[in-house]
Amino acid sequence: MTTTRPLRIALIGTGFMGKMHTHAWRTAPRFFDLPAEPQPVLLVGRRADATAEAAARWGWPEHGTDWREAVARDDIDVVDICTPGDTHAEIALAALTAGKHVLCEKPLANDVREAEQMSHAALDAPGVSMCGFSYRRTPALALARDLVRSGRIGEVRHVRAQYLQDWLSDPNAPHTWRLDRERSGSGTLGDIGAHSIDAAQWLTGQTITAVSAVLRTFVQSRPRRAAVDGLGGVADADAAHLPVTVDDAAAFTAHFSGGALGVFEATRMATGRRNANRIEINGDRGSIAFDFERMNELEVYDVENGDTQGFRRVQVTESQHPYAGAWWPAGHGLGYEHLFVHQAADFVRAVAGLEDAWPSFADAAQVQRVLAAIEDSAAHDSILTAVAAAGADERTSS
Amino acid sequence: MTTTRPLRIALIGTGFMGKMHTHAWRTAPRFFDLPAEPQPVLLVGRRADATAEAAARWGWPEHGTDWREAVARDDIDVVDICTPGDTHAEIALAALTAGKHVLCEKPLANDVREAEQMSHAALDAPGVSMCGFSYRRTPALALARDLVRSGRIGEVRHVRAQYLQDWLSDPNAPHTWRLDRERSGSGTLGDIGAHSIDAAQWLTGQTITAVSAVLRTFVQSRPRRAAVDGLGGVADADAAHLPVTVDDAAAFTAHFSGGALGVFEATRMATGRRNANRIEINGDRGSIAFDFERMNELEVYDVENGDTQGFRRVQVTESQHPYAGAWWPAGHGLGYEHLFVHQAADFVRAVAGLEDAWPSFADAAQVQRVLAAIEDSAAHDSILTAVAAAGADERTSS
Amino acid sequence: MTTTRPLRIALIGTGFMGKMHTHAWRTAPRFFDLPAEPQPVLLVGRRADATAEAAARWGWPEHGTDWREAVARDDIDVVDICTPGDTHAEIALAALTAGKHVLCEKPLANDVREAEQMSHAALDAPGVSMCGFSYRRTPALALARDLVRSGRIGEVRHVRAQYLQDWLSDPNAPHTWRLDRERSGSGTLGDIGAHSIDAAQWLTGQTITAVSAVLRTFVQSRPRRAAVDGLGGVADADAAHLPVTVDDAAAFTAHFSGGALGVFEATRMATGRRNANRIEINGDRGSIAFDFERMNELEVYDVENGDTQGFRRVQVTESQHPYAGAWWPAGHGLGYEHLFVHQAADFVRAVAGLEDAWPSFADAAQVQRVLAAIEDSAAHDSILTAVAAAGADERTSS
Amino acid sequence: MTTTRPLRIALIGTGFMGKMHTHAWRTAPRFFDLPAEPQPVLLVGRRADATAEAAARWGWPEHGTDWREAVARDDIDVVDICTPGDTHAEIALAALTAGKHVLCEKPLANDVREAEQMSHAALDAPGVSMCGFSYRRTPALALARDLVRSGRIGEVRHVRAQYLQDWLSDPNAPHTWRLDRERSGSGTLGDIGAHSIDAAQWLTGQTITAVSAVLRTFVQSRPRRAAVDGLGGVADADAAHLPVTVDDAAAFTAHFSGGALGVFEATRMATGRRNANRIEINGDRGSIAFDFERMNELEVYDVENGDTQGFRRVQVTESQHPYAGAWWPAGHGLGYEHLFVHQAADFVRAVAGLEDAWPSFADAAQVQRVLAAIEDSAAHDSILTAVAAAGADERTSS
Repeated sequence: MTTTRPLRIALIGTGFMGKMHTHAWRTAPRFFDLPAEPQPVLLVGRRADATAEAAARWGWPEHGTDWREAVARDDIDVVDICTPGDTHAEIALAALTAGKHVLCEKPLANDVREAEQMSHAALDAPGVSMCGFSYRRTPALALARDLVRSGRIGEVRHVRAQYLQDWLSDPNAPHTWRLDRERSGSGTLGDIGAHSIDAAQWLTGQTITAVSAVLRTFVQSRPRRAAVDGLGGVADADAAHLPVTVDDAAAFTAHFSGGALGVFEATRMATGRRNANRIEINGDRGSIAFDFERMNELEVYDVENGDTQGFRRVQVTESQHPYAGAWWPAGHGLGYEHLFVHQAADFVRAVAGLEDAWPSFADAAQVQRVLAAIEDSAAHDSILTAVAAAGADERTSS
Repeated sequence: MTTTRPLRIALIGTGFMGKMHTHAWRTAPRFFDLPAEPQPVLLVGRRADATAEAAARWGWPEHGTDWREAVARDDIDVVDICTPGDTHAEIALAALTAGKHVLCEKPLANDVREAEQMSHAALDAPGVSMCGFSYRRTPALALARDLVRSGRIGEVRHVRAQYLQDWLSDPNAPHTWRLDRERSGSGTLGDIGAHSIDAAQWLTGQTITAVSAVLRTFVQSRPRRAAVDGLGGVADADAAHLPVTVDDAAAFTAHFSGGALGVFEATRMATGRRNANRIEINGDRGSIAFDFERMNELEVYDVENGDTQGFRRVQVTESQHPYAGAWWPAGHGLGYEHLFVHQAADFVRAVAGLEDAWPSFADAAQVQRVLAAIEDSAAHDSILTAVAAAGADERTSS
Repeated sequence: MTTTRPLRIALIGTGFMGKMHTHAWRTAPRFFDLPAEPQPVLLVGRRADATAEAAARWGWPEHGTDWREAVARDDIDVVDICTPGDTHAEIALAALTAGKHVLCEKPLANDVREAEQMSHAALDAPGVSMCGFSYRRTPALALARDLVRSGRIGEVRHVRAQYLQDWLSDPNAPHTWRLDRERSGSGTLGDIGAHSIDAAQWLTGQTITAVSAVLRTFVQSRPRRAAVDGLGGVADADAAHLPVTVDDAAAFTAHFSGGALGVFEATRMATGRRNANRIEINGDRGSIAFDFERMNELEVYDVENGDTQGFRRVQVTESQHPYAGAWWPAGHGLGYEHLFVHQAADFVRAVAGLEDAWPSFADAAQVQRVLAAIEDSAAHDSILTAVAAAGADERTSS
Repeated sequence: MTTTRPLRIALIGTGFMGKMHTHAWRTAPRFFDLPAEPQPVLLVGRRADATAEAAARWGWPEHGTDWREAVARDDIDVVDICTPGDTHAEIALAALTAGKHVLCEKPLANDVREAEQMSHAALDAPGVSMCGFSYRRTPALALARDLVRSGRIGEVRHVRAQYLQDWLSDPNAPHTWRLDRERSGSGTLGDIGAHSIDAAQWLTGQTITAVSAVLRTFVQSRPRRAAVDGLGGVADADAAHLPVTVDDAAAFTAHFSGGALGVFEATRMATGRRNANRIEINGDRGSIAFDFERMNELEVYDVENGDTQGFRRVQVTESQHPYAGAWWPAGHGLGYEHLFVHQAADFVRAVAGLEDAWPSFADAAQVQRVLAAIEDSAAHDSILTAVAAAGADERTSS
């Protein structure tokens, strides 16, 4: 163990994702055999006090308030970007130019132009780059991808994806920065719909070529927030209402490059559905179905099963399954954070050249183009809208 | 019992639905207290031999090959239409004019014009009229409607309906009359999508006002059928292929009159889904979810449940539930045919004036207008298409 | 159809089971191709008024109050016994002696001596005899039996059976005849535990050879019933309490002849479980699991499934499945009464010599011996108690 | 953060549980506000090489091979015992005597005598002591306990517990130390059945007073193991068979001090069940049901729910639920290791006097007495066997 070289990390962002990434960097080397040891060096946040407190609690030896320090220092190998989306492009471009390895949270950027700029920069840069569509590293979805790509379900016809949450179903739930387009960049569509788009394209190996979409804001204004609790919080009863300037829900049909038909829905108002990130894919030889609320399970259907055909509930927790062998005995489930630990482990391996870094910035730019087409379609009476083509030199991960 | 007057029935059609309706007429009075006793009198089919055999097997005392006889005879009270959709209008209009009570299978007609003609005729006719959207009489859906209409789930935001079958997922599954537009009138959309549309409008009490749709035919031609088995059959390996002229799948988003957003999908190619007629409705106070593959269950979510919120699996089999009290003890499930027995019982009560007949022909005409708007939207790049308004004098059931 | 000979039936009993059997005799020939046509002739009940009313409602042309008439008449082929258990032996023995075919509801008798007497009489009689353990004819359980008997799950180790109901969980639920040992013969054990015992022996092809048991009465007295509702009813608040003289719950471990280990539980106090008649069987190559609350489904596990092992939810509703081909398209479920229709159809075929009649009276006598051993063990501190051996000439169905 | 005093830990054991406890000590302070900071100081193992390697990988600054060093050193506050059961008593007694705080993995000891000795020592010792029945700290079970103890489900009648695994269902699965009574102390009963016993007593607040039991070994000998994989491994085809000297399965009925009836089953041969640690409790006002294969869910039934009664699937992942508030947003599940993180956090709080340490050694001694009664009953034809009473001064946690 002593000969493993360190991989020195600067993390930008002290919010929820910063905490999660810290946990992942610390945990990955204890459960995976890695070619380098991730070493937390510098935590960067906007406010000095809060950043110092987070650094102490999470165990970062140094902290600061200027991300440029992370990019400039020679003793930093990785810049891990966990800030809001409107700052991703500037930081990532600087870090790539400085030769750093870059892990960037999703969404990659706030618009297509920025995303494509980042994607191009990543192609030319010496460091590896990865965008944090973490759901790909759920063992059940990784198994699903292997099954679909290996032809197990045959030719893909249907993609049926829903991402259902309900933390805004109460019309008196308070306003937060996520409901302000200026600050969040987008609403439900970009926040959770983007995950479904990425998962669908990755699982099928097909890109979305055209969409017909609806966006909807059910509650036009909400009271100011008095206290934080989870994603939502408690409203200040006397406070004035603030306008909601993003979508509460998005729904769209999609055409895939290989001929599949997609039906997508994302909402924060599906009362009773806490985090139902679901996807089902039907091919002519079988199907797979997944719901993140039961993240350790994959439903698999094979036409081969004679008089006992049916969806099989596979517990994707065995040593033969993706990632699962590093953890517990079969049937002992994993949780949400394992996705991030897997991401950290894969990132370290990619830096060492043992595997490709995926999802690439090009993958993330492709998601951004789909998001743009959806907004465009929704603004024009749902009319079928083509997704812009990738640049000739863009390389998506397979 | 001896004083109950008979309700004399002529049934037109000797296919699967004719068999089901026969069973329903015979069974209803044994389990429900009815104001009249349904009495099978005359079975009418196209081919004399097959009709005679069906009459013998199913227990009809008389049989014939001309539906006009049923309309003309004085000793017939009810004309029950179980023929293909292209014959509904002519038979129903004649029967209504002759003063008969009319039960007509869905779809009401093959186009909007016919459906509206029937709807108007029904308004003026002395007899009662009902269209066979039988799923409404699943106890779980009847309970769902009561919950939604009583405000239990609050203001409705989302309607999420899928009707998934898979009997065409094999590209070598044989061609049948259902795949020929000339004979079937429509494909998946009209056959099963229509059920979802009717259920959604009925459950919410809202009409669909505009749609954006995609129709898709995945397999363009299929081998001729050699033998029947269920909905599909066995292909004749040497036979020539016949073109598929209807849709295999339909997907559309919908705007509802009360502001709800609908996402619908119907397909016969969802491998592994045999008859997943699903609907979920989210309001701001709760939700209901249903899947016909588990037809005796309704999932109900209430925001009231404090620290034990969650979807509740209600077995809709108790004496306090719609229809269920007529049958078995709690937890002893009902099957598909009970929908038709309930329909028969309700029809008899409507004839006696004890309750309204629903779904009305006006309800069914409304479904037909939605289907037409979907086809129109799909033909024009999914553009948002308004559903035509009902005539001023059309009366839908509540 | 006209050449089919009639099978003339007398039904003894006007309660719930009488209604169900009537429905079955009428429905079976409309859905199954039968070698004879069941013809309801005579309905017998204790009280003349109620019997006349039932005969009118259910469609029996003749009615009476003396079962001996049914046995004596030459124009009766079948005596169908749906009376309380304490009358079974006398009626069945007389009917067998008179050369009738006999269908007898479970439990076969109130004690082992009677059951064995009936079993011996059945062996010598010219007519066929069958005991109404109707759950065997659930398509899912019939499929399970085929899988287990064909070796699909390998050597059987575990049998795990629970029959959970809750209609007595409220301590104020009223007293009924089912809680009076004098009238019911037994409590939960004989009423529903007997079903589990029969199913377990039938599915595995093994007999239970020894048991260790507990019987428990949680509520020792209950208020007199004022009105009937389902299995329970409404208590008369002012009425005196009556003693409960039967068991509320039974639990026992069991040794099977082939080496399997059984764990059984039956109760009417599993709050929230309406009719959870469950059985799971684990072999060294696979498993099956069933719950009657989802009676159209069978869970099947095969060790063969490589990296996608898991329990498969089979919808046992397809033309290739036992009984299901006579009914609806795949995915359109059956209900509780179909078990009785299947029983009626099989009985008719057995009368015609096309198949054996099962479960035989010998099978039912075997269940009775297990019940006796359970009561004996429970009375002696749960000590392991051998089940009495069958007589040398007793023949159980395979 | 800087003022938090450290809690200095020595961990004895380098196996799977050592790894898990290490992860827990490191992770707890990053997610929970703790009154002291757990500080890994010394790792002790039997073999110097393996211990050095584990210390390096897991991040322990010091390592050694003699547990007495941990007990003797003044700069150690906590002794965390993760060794096989036959060494627990000696280490724990020495550590308690030395004034250490002691966390001891389950089973507490290999027999009742040792367990009671430890329980008595814990009462008199200055340090806190806790036994690692970690399942208690599954949020869903902690919520279940709160519901049951608060009277939400009324008077408890039924406890139905199954712990089903299948890693021995293949008769050719290799022999391991777990199958050798000399080394493991017990088989399935002590390994996983003990968890069910502890959970049942803790959830209900009742102790088990008498049992009637069966133990069974289905496969009497197995081939020697060639390689480890999960709990099992790969057999060496040419190796001789070794005898299996422990039980493969245990089944027993149980009487509880408050009148409840228990039915328990534990097995490693329930093919297809990976880690189905299930418990259901029925009271006269409601029920709870749990299965560790879906560890983030609790099923809750209330009789209050009028016409929508049913089991409610509660996702126990919300800020209002036990432990869950420290982690992710609602619907983002936890995994197996969180039980150990919760245990570490609670242990630290107990050391600081903020709460009691539970489960106590007395709780664990009570489990040991039940295990002894089960073995005794099974050895005597399942006869009902009283569980020995606790000593007058033994104090179980509530």
